[in-house]
Amino acid sequence: MIGAAPDWGVYLVTDTAQCGGPQAVARTVVAARSAGVGAVQLRDPDANTRELAALGRALLAALSGAGIPLIVNDRVDVALAIGADGAHVGQRDLDPVDARRLLGPDRHLGLSVETVDQARAAGRLPPGTVNLLGVGPIRATASKPDAAPATGWDGFARICAATSIPCVAIGRVTAADAGQVRAAGGVGMAVISAICGQPDPAEATRRLRRAWRDAAGETVER
Amino acid sequence: MIGAAPDWGVYLVTDTAQCGGPQAVARTVVAARSAGVGAVQLRDPDANTRELAALGRALLAALSGAGIPLIVNDRVDVALAIGADGAHVGQRDLDPVDARRLLGPDRHLGLSVETVDQARAAGRLPPGTVNLLGVGPIRATASKPDAAPATGWDGFARICAATSIPCVAIGRVTAADAGQVRAAGGVGMAVISAICGQPDPAEATRRLRRAWRDAAGETVER
Repeated sequence: MIGAAPDWGVYLVTDTAQCGGPQAVARTVVAARSAGVGAVQLRDPDANTRELAALGRALLAALSGAGIPLIVNDRVDVALAIGADGAHVGQRDLDPVDARRLLGPDRHLGLSVETVDQARAAGRLPPGTVNLLGVGPIRATASKPDAAPATGWDGFARICAATSIPCVAIGRVTAADAGQVRAAGGVGMAVISAICGQPDPAEATRRLRRAWRDAAGETVER
Repeated sequence: MIGAAPDWGVYLVTDTAQCGGPQAVARTVVAARSAGVGAVQLRDPDANTRELAALGRALLAALSGAGIPLIVNDRVDVALAIGADGAHVGQRDLDPVDARRLLGPDRHLGLSVETVDQARAAGRLPPGTVNLLGVGPIRATASKPDAAPATGWDGFARICAATSIPCVAIGRVTAADAGQVRAAGGVGMAVISAICGQPDPAEATRRLRRAWRDAAGETVER
């Protein structure tokens, strides 16, 4: 089975163009690593496979020893080839059952869901198939031009309520949304533009982490 | 180790657009199956992963029991998920060593090479990594707009001579080229447009098969 659950509170999904190129993605991950990021997803649908694997290896090196999982979007083969901690598939990617079979029981597998029906379908998968749902887009987003209609916070809450699989919110989520995510039962904020391309990605990550803690009524650490 | 070598003589590489859609790809493979095709490669860089896996499963069904291997281009994860007979990677896809590790020892792994240097590099891989080279493009081709400069037949012969790994020619190859391929030491003709989208894909396949046999001085079967 999958080991200790990561802290999905601040879950960075990389965007190579928004960061400013592959080297800037690695620098962004290094900055986020020491600023409270809980998990990182490598997403670069425009890269060829060789480039994606190289970037993935650079991010694994950047995260080495930090206990922060690296998840690869769509490409289960790349996740396995580079020894990543898991994969994330969308509704148009590999079937989650196939992906879980290839990944084995010990890696993370996330699934994007856009509707209550998709969340319920995820709940009917064999236990242990998927251990995280990426729910959204909360707001319409330019990062994924082929994305489904925005769910809004009501839609996010309905999806969280429809499944026992932990849900993170994605789609132009910012630090100001931490309370909404927590109130709906979400376990974290998956962010792209709130970190990628920000003038100070470390400070942007700290801001998200503080907001996530504050929303739980925890003591804010600095 | 990999079992009996397939007959790569007529190696169909599918093009969904040229065939006229996914269902037409399956019909083309059915037609080619009974007309002498030796191997089929599923190639559809425009499909999403879910579509590619579905098409791959349809082609596996179409080839069931025929002893004709199905090879998946680029996506090693899809090859494994659907139980295909192998994968084919290009210079910008997964590293062949990574791909072989994921595929295990029993599946086919092909590699595209465009130059003598790439063929020599393939020869320096651990034994058994790659068991076929796709060499080309022999002629400039519209199917792969990002392809390298055409090798021509002299270039193909030099590449064949630079490696002990079996080589097939690809890139607007037609039945009329069978003699050139054999003379250069090639083990087959990888074709897209010579079958996909032809008015009679079965007859087109038979023509290629006859030409391939004729070029070896064998008796022509009809």
